[in-house]
Amino acid sequence: MAEVNVNLGNRSYKIFIDVANKKIIATLMQNMKVNQKVLIVSDQNVGNLYGVELKKQLQQSGFIVELHCISPGEHSKCLDTAMELYTKAIVLGLDRNSTILALGGGVVGDLSGFVAATYLRGIPFIQVPTSLLSQVDSSVGGKVAVNHPLGKNLIGAFYQPKAVVIDIDCLHTLPDRELFTGLAEVIKCGVIADKNFFMYLNNNVQQILDKEPDALTEIIRRSCEIKARVVEQDEQESSLRAILNFGHTIGHAIEANTSFSIYNHGEAVAIGMYGAALISKYLGLCSEMTVANLKDTISKFKLPLSAPECNITELFALLYRDKKVVDNKINWVLLNEIGQVSICKQVPEDVVIRVLKEITVPNKIC
Amino acid sequence: MAEVNVNLGNRSYKIFIDVANKKIIATLMQNMKVNQKVLIVSDQNVGNLYGVELKKQLQQSGFIVELHCISPGEHSKCLDTAMELYTKAIVLGLDRNSTILALGGGVVGDLSGFVAATYLRGIPFIQVPTSLLSQVDSSVGGKVAVNHPLGKNLIGAFYQPKAVVIDIDCLHTLPDRELFTGLAEVIKCGVIADKNFFMYLNNNVQQILDKEPDALTEIIRRSCEIKARVVEQDEQESSLRAILNFGHTIGHAIEANTSFSIYNHGEAVAIGMYGAALISKYLGLCSEMTVANLKDTISKFKLPLSAPECNITELFALLYRDKKVVDNKINWVLLNEIGQVSICKQVPEDVVIRVLKEITVPNKIC
Repeated sequence: MAEVNVNLGNRSYKIFIDVANKKIIATLMQNMKVNQKVLIVSDQNVGNLYGVELKKQLQQSGFIVELHCISPGEHSKCLDTAMELYTKAIVLGLDRNSTILALGGGVVGDLSGFVAATYLRGIPFIQVPTSLLSQVDSSVGGKVAVNHPLGKNLIGAFYQPKAVVIDIDCLHTLPDRELFTGLAEVIKCGVIADKNFFMYLNNNVQQILDKEPDALTEIIRRSCEIKARVVEQDEQESSLRAILNFGHTIGHAIEANTSFSIYNHGEAVAIGMYGAALISKYLGLCSEMTVANLKDTISKFKLPLSAPECNITELFALLYRDKKVVDNKINWVLLNEIGQVSICKQVPEDVVIRVLKEITVPNKIC
Repeated sequence: MAEVNVNLGNRSYKIFIDVANKKIIATLMQNMKVNQKVLIVSDQNVGNLYGVELKKQLQQSGFIVELHCISPGEHSKCLDTAMELYTKAIVLGLDRNSTILALGGGVVGDLSGFVAATYLRGIPFIQVPTSLLSQVDSSVGGKVAVNHPLGKNLIGAFYQPKAVVIDIDCLHTLPDRELFTGLAEVIKCGVIADKNFFMYLNNNVQQILDKEPDALTEIIRRSCEIKARVVEQDEQESSLRAILNFGHTIGHAIEANTSFSIYNHGEAVAIGMYGAALISKYLGLCSEMTVANLKDTISKFKLPLSAPECNITELFALLYRDKKVVDNKINWVLLNEIGQVSICKQVPEDVVIRVLKEITVPNKIC
C-alpha cells in the first residue's frame, strides 16, 4: 500500500492508496474517534457498483449504516441536494461524532464534504474517491463546495477529511474518457512541480492507459503528494495554492463557454494548460521546446489542445468571472519550465487574445 | 471606548464597544486588508433605522456599498434567504477581499455569517450587532448558522468575524422585552464565570434597566470578555465551550415545545438556568442559597422562572434532540456556586423529571 500524509496540524490526515482497498475502511473507522452512525453518500451508478457492498462490510463491523444515492451528474451539486442530505442526517440522528462517507467522484465528494462541513457546524468526513479525477484532485486538500446557478463552486468551505481511501480497483469500471480527464490533472502535477514525474508519465504512457495497477498507484501517489505539499503550505489559498490552478483559468472559461456539455473538466484544463504555456512563451517566460513537450504529452494521453466551439469574445469575458479574480485582476499561473511555474497578474490583453485565437482553431493533432 | 480582544491566532479580532460607535466602521475597514465592495445585510426594521445612514457613511469613505434588507424574524434564518444573499453577492461581484457586514440582531448576524463563511469558501465578515442579545452572545465566538425545518442552527460553521462593532446607541430603540432577553445571557456570564460580575448586576439593576450608557457598556464589555476567554480555550466546542450552554439545554426544549412563539431565547434560557440550578441542588452540587440568589436575580431583570405552557413528557423528549447530545448523552452544565459550573453527563432521569415539573408550574413571582 502507498500512503501519503497531509500535514495540517490537528487537521492532518492520510491518503491510503491500494488495490482492494475498500476493505480497510471498517478498520480505519474503528481506529478513529467516531461513533457508530455512518451515512454513505454515493450516486446511483457508483452506489450500485460499490455502495451496497461497502454498507454491508461496515454493518458487519458493527456500524449503523445508511446508503443514500443521489442522482449522478453535476446538477446534483447544489443546495437542494445538500438540503436532502441534511434532512437525511437529521432523520438518522447523526451527531457530531458520526461520519459522512463520500463514495464517488468529484460531485459526490464536494457535495458530501460541504454537508459534512456545515451539518452541526462540522462532523467527521471520509473520502472514498472512485474516479481518477477525484482521486488525484478533488478529494485532496479540503476544498468542498456546491454550485450556484450563476457559477460553479461558489458556495463552499475549506474542510479536511479524516482520511482518504483510494481503491485502484474502482478504476476498472471507469470509462476511458473519465480516465483521460483525470490524467490532465496528473500531467498538471508534473508540470507545476516535478520534472521527473513528468518524464515518468511520458515513459509509461501505455502502462497508464492500460490501467496497470503499479502505474496507476504511482501516478496517484505522486499526484496526491504534490498536491498535499502545496496545500500544506497554503491551505486556504492565500498565495502558493494558486499554482494548482495551472490551466484552470482558461479551462474554466472553456467549460462555461460550452455550457459544460462538450469538454469535461480535464479536457478543458488540458486546453487551458496549453494556452497558459503559449502565454508564457509569448511573454518570454519559457522556451518553444517546453511548450512542445507539454503539447506532446497532452496529446499522448488523448486530451485535446483546442476548443473550436468557443467564442473568443465570450471566453475573454469569462476569464474575469473566475472566483480567483480579486480586484479585477486575473492570477495567471504561467510556465517557466517543466516542473516550475510562477504567478503573474500582468498579462497584456493582446497576448491573451492571441492565445485564445490559437486554442480555438481546429487542431489536427486531436 | 471599551475594547475586548478575542485571541484566536490568525483569526483574532477586536470587539469595540462605545456610544455613537458606528462612525468608526469606515475607518476600521480602511485599516483592514479588504477591497471596496461591501454588502450590508440588515432586516427591514434595523435597515430603516440605521442601514441607510451606515451605507451613506461608507460610501462617503469611498466604498461601493449595497444594503440588502431581509424580512425580519427567525423565518429568514434559512437556506432560502442564504441563497438570496449568495445571488446578491455574485451579482454585485463580491470577491474574496470584499466584506459582508451584518447590521442587526442574531438572525441577521448568524445568517450573514454563514453566507460570509461559505461564499467563495469564506470572505471577510464584520458584525455590527444591534440587539443586546446579539451584542453579548451571538456576535462573539464565530458560531454562524441557518435553521433547518427540523431544528434550529443545524446548518452552520465556526467562522470568526474580522471585527465586532457594538454601538450602545442602538439599544435606545430596542423594546424592553428584547433588552430583558439579552440580560439573561448577561446573567449567565456572571453565573458561569464571575461572581463579582454577578454582584455588579445585582447592585446596578435600575441603571441597567434604565439603559444608562456606562452600565450598558460595562455589562456588554464584561459579558464579551467572559465569552471570549471561553472561546479562546475551545473555539470549536470540543469541551469547555459547552459551559456557555448553561441554561440552554432546558431553554432550547422550552422554545421548541412552545413553537418558539411564547418565550423568546433569553426568557427560555432564564427558566433553563433556574432548572439547571435546581438539578444541581438536588444532586448536592450547590446550596439552596445559591439557587435562591440566581432565582432572585432572574426575577429582578424581569425574566420568567417557569413555563406553564410546556408539557413535561414532550420537554423530556426534546432534551435529547439537542445538537450537543452525543451518543445519546446530554451534556448538562450544572452549578457549583455563583461563578462556577461543571459539566455532567450523568443526571438521573427522575431528577430531571422532578425539575421539569417545578419549572412548568405557574410561578407567582413572574
